[in-house]
Amino acid sequence: MKFHKVEGGVTAAEGFLAAGVHCGIKKKNGKKDVALVFSETRAAAAGVYTKNRFQAPPLLLTREHLAGGYARAIVCNSGNANACTGEQGLKDARRMAEITAEELGIAPQEVAVASTGVIGQYLPMATVEEGIRAAARELSRTGGAAAAAAIMTTDLVSKETAYSLEIGGKTVTVGGMAKGSGMIHPNMATMLAFVTTDCNISPVLLHKALVYTVDRSYNLITVDGDTSTNDMVVVLANGMAGNTEITDGSADYHRFLTLLQRVNTDLSQMIVRDGEGATKFIQVTVKNAASFADGKALAMGILGSNLVKTAFFGEDANWGRIVSAMGQTAVEFYPERVDVFLGDLPVFRDGRGLVFDEARAREILGKRDIFVTVDLKMGNENVTAWGCDLSHDYVTINASYRT
Amino acid sequence: MKFHKVEGGVTAAEGFLAAGVHCGIKKKNGKKDVALVFSETRAAAAGVYTKNRFQAPPLLLTREHLAGGYARAIVCNSGNANACTGEQGLKDARRMAEITAEELGIAPQEVAVASTGVIGQYLPMATVEEGIRAAARELSRTGGAAAAAAIMTTDLVSKETAYSLEIGGKTVTVGGMAKGSGMIHPNMATMLAFVTTDCNISPVLLHKALVYTVDRSYNLITVDGDTSTNDMVVVLANGMAGNTEITDGSADYHRFLTLLQRVNTDLSQMIVRDGEGATKFIQVTVKNAASFADGKALAMGILGSNLVKTAFFGEDANWGRIVSAMGQTAVEFYPERVDVFLGDLPVFRDGRGLVFDEARAREILGKRDIFVTVDLKMGNENVTAWGCDLSHDYVTINASYRT
Repeated sequence: MKFHKVEGGVTAAEGFLAAGVHCGIKKKNGKKDVALVFSETRAAAAGVYTKNRFQAPPLLLTREHLAGGYARAIVCNSGNANACTGEQGLKDARRMAEITAEELGIAPQEVAVASTGVIGQYLPMATVEEGIRAAARELSRTGGAAAAAAIMTTDLVSKETAYSLEIGGKTVTVGGMAKGSGMIHPNMATMLAFVTTDCNISPVLLHKALVYTVDRSYNLITVDGDTSTNDMVVVLANGMAGNTEITDGSADYHRFLTLLQRVNTDLSQMIVRDGEGATKFIQVTVKNAASFADGKALAMGILGSNLVKTAFFGEDANWGRIVSAMGQTAVEFYPERVDVFLGDLPVFRDGRGLVFDEARAREILGKRDIFVTVDLKMGNENVTAWGCDLSHDYVTINASYRT
Repeated sequence: MKFHKVEGGVTAAEGFLAAGVHCGIKKKNGKKDVALVFSETRAAAAGVYTKNRFQAPPLLLTREHLAGGYARAIVCNSGNANACTGEQGLKDARRMAEITAEELGIAPQEVAVASTGVIGQYLPMATVEEGIRAAARELSRTGGAAAAAAIMTTDLVSKETAYSLEIGGKTVTVGGMAKGSGMIHPNMATMLAFVTTDCNISPVLLHKALVYTVDRSYNLITVDGDTSTNDMVVVLANGMAGNTEITDGSADYHRFLTLLQRVNTDLSQMIVRDGEGATKFIQVTVKNAASFADGKALAMGILGSNLVKTAFFGEDANWGRIVSAMGQTAVEFYPERVDVFLGDLPVFRDGRGLVFDEARAREILGKRDIFVTVDLKMGNENVTAWGCDLSHDYVTINASYRT
């Protein structure tokens, strides 16, 4: 399939406007703190949400609003997560939808609401209201970058990507933005992604494609193993590409799925690369697993191990930690068949360590991007996941916020 | 129940001899590296083993030897884990049992074998043989401390404890030693515990008591979330206290269970206090859980979160990370009922953050030992677990071994 990388993010697809403004939720530095995304026409909408039992009010509201399958706008503030805020928090999230709807001449139920930042504090609603109204005035076809900046918290870089692909004789574009790096005071890791497309696809099928691709992108990354109260991924599809509506199981559906996967994978990797304190980007591929679930559990087990993470920080060719991290997962496999490679260097074969070229290992591990391959020799599933190392800066960033 | 704290560890109970010697597996510093424990009479024996799929040969052998329910000796070397060593490793473990049996005039099947240290290397068997023979010559009723020293790897302190309790009109003693702190090159976290008692109890009932108490001691601690290829807990009961054999469900059984629990809990806490880089000892109690499994999963979820661990390192009263770590477990609970206390200070009530005295929080978190209580208000199970913080030293220790 021939993708085209396209400039921009949430405004790359036809019919989407966006804006990002500073209203003062983030007090200190004039940084943007309200993002707005708007579709010129009604869009099929789908969302996936954190499984954390402490779910923030904006997430509860967005789930409710998207239940009908359609939406036209996404409003997101940064600097305050509106989490653990109870009834007042839900009221504030509803008010954000109302203000947005009023400005855009749509129904409040057509607005997805998200918040990210400090938890346990009420939103400064007068400030938020000003921000939403200002953002509505600034909506434009080139506002994607400003919106991507406005959802950042501890992120060092903003994250957007877009691709297009011919589907049903039409150029379909999928673009998105994401935020995520670690946490904010009193804090937790927070990941948000918003994706827009001009593809013509039903809400049901859009949801199916979203769930499938999220499981193979955002659910295959880990920075510190902690999930947030506010995480969500929302996708809007307004159909303006003009393709014939996609049907389940068709070649077009698979083309769209691949396109959506590409955008979500890009955004996922951007989050890991911007992981708190990260000095290494680590890609783990588990080959020949019996199932996707097995491969995922093993790859995430390796990437989630503090011992593995600190070894990579130390550029240590420590296969013992990798195989031990695998062994402690619930996955059934044959230890005596396992091979491990660092880059292209075999370090472990058939369940036994190999004598390997230490200089070559140092060279491989000295790079910013490290590729680990594990071969189980069991089935046919190959799963790739992404993570980062555990550095002194991670400890500093997360120990020093309040003190 | 009136426990008496008793001096010593594995030689505190009647009829147990021990020794610890240096033979040269640990080359550098003359540190002890072979430990031997011997019961003057046949002892009921039980073991629990790591669930890691990469299981070291000595562990496989010990499982085989203890299957019959009886043993008389434990031999353990440090400095080399004999892990990921395949057929040769199993042969070496068998040879360790044979040498021990020969020295002690018992059958090889009566010997439990353990190893801890570097993985992926063969044991220097000539050296090990010398060590076992030397240890056999030095066996004594006061050798417990030397044995405890001989199983250390990166441990900063040796770990032994013993208690006695009247059971069936006789004084029954349980004593033990453990090692565990983190890892060794190329390495993984390694935990071993050996417990001896003069209680008269059948192998089946001893195993039952061991499993129950291990689940409430070693399985309730975490340093870095990684389990080893070599972890095991072995208990020998030689009956020399002279009590009437304990029967299942009797008052005596419950007394013995409590005694064994006390020893295992003590050793568990010693491991956590000696956790790599640890500056804080953190005790988490989950109150009013629906089940033991729920309480355990939540307590371990809190203690295992890097965000929680770094917050404690930073002495940050970060309830947001605690509740988020709870929310991401698989446990069903009502977020809106949850209370959280740091020491005696309420910081979160009924699912909402409280305004609290920051000076008081700093005082509580400034101490070496920190007590966290979470109240679920669901059932009647209270579960307490133990962990430590995540410090710069943890990263340094684990990143810098080879480089």
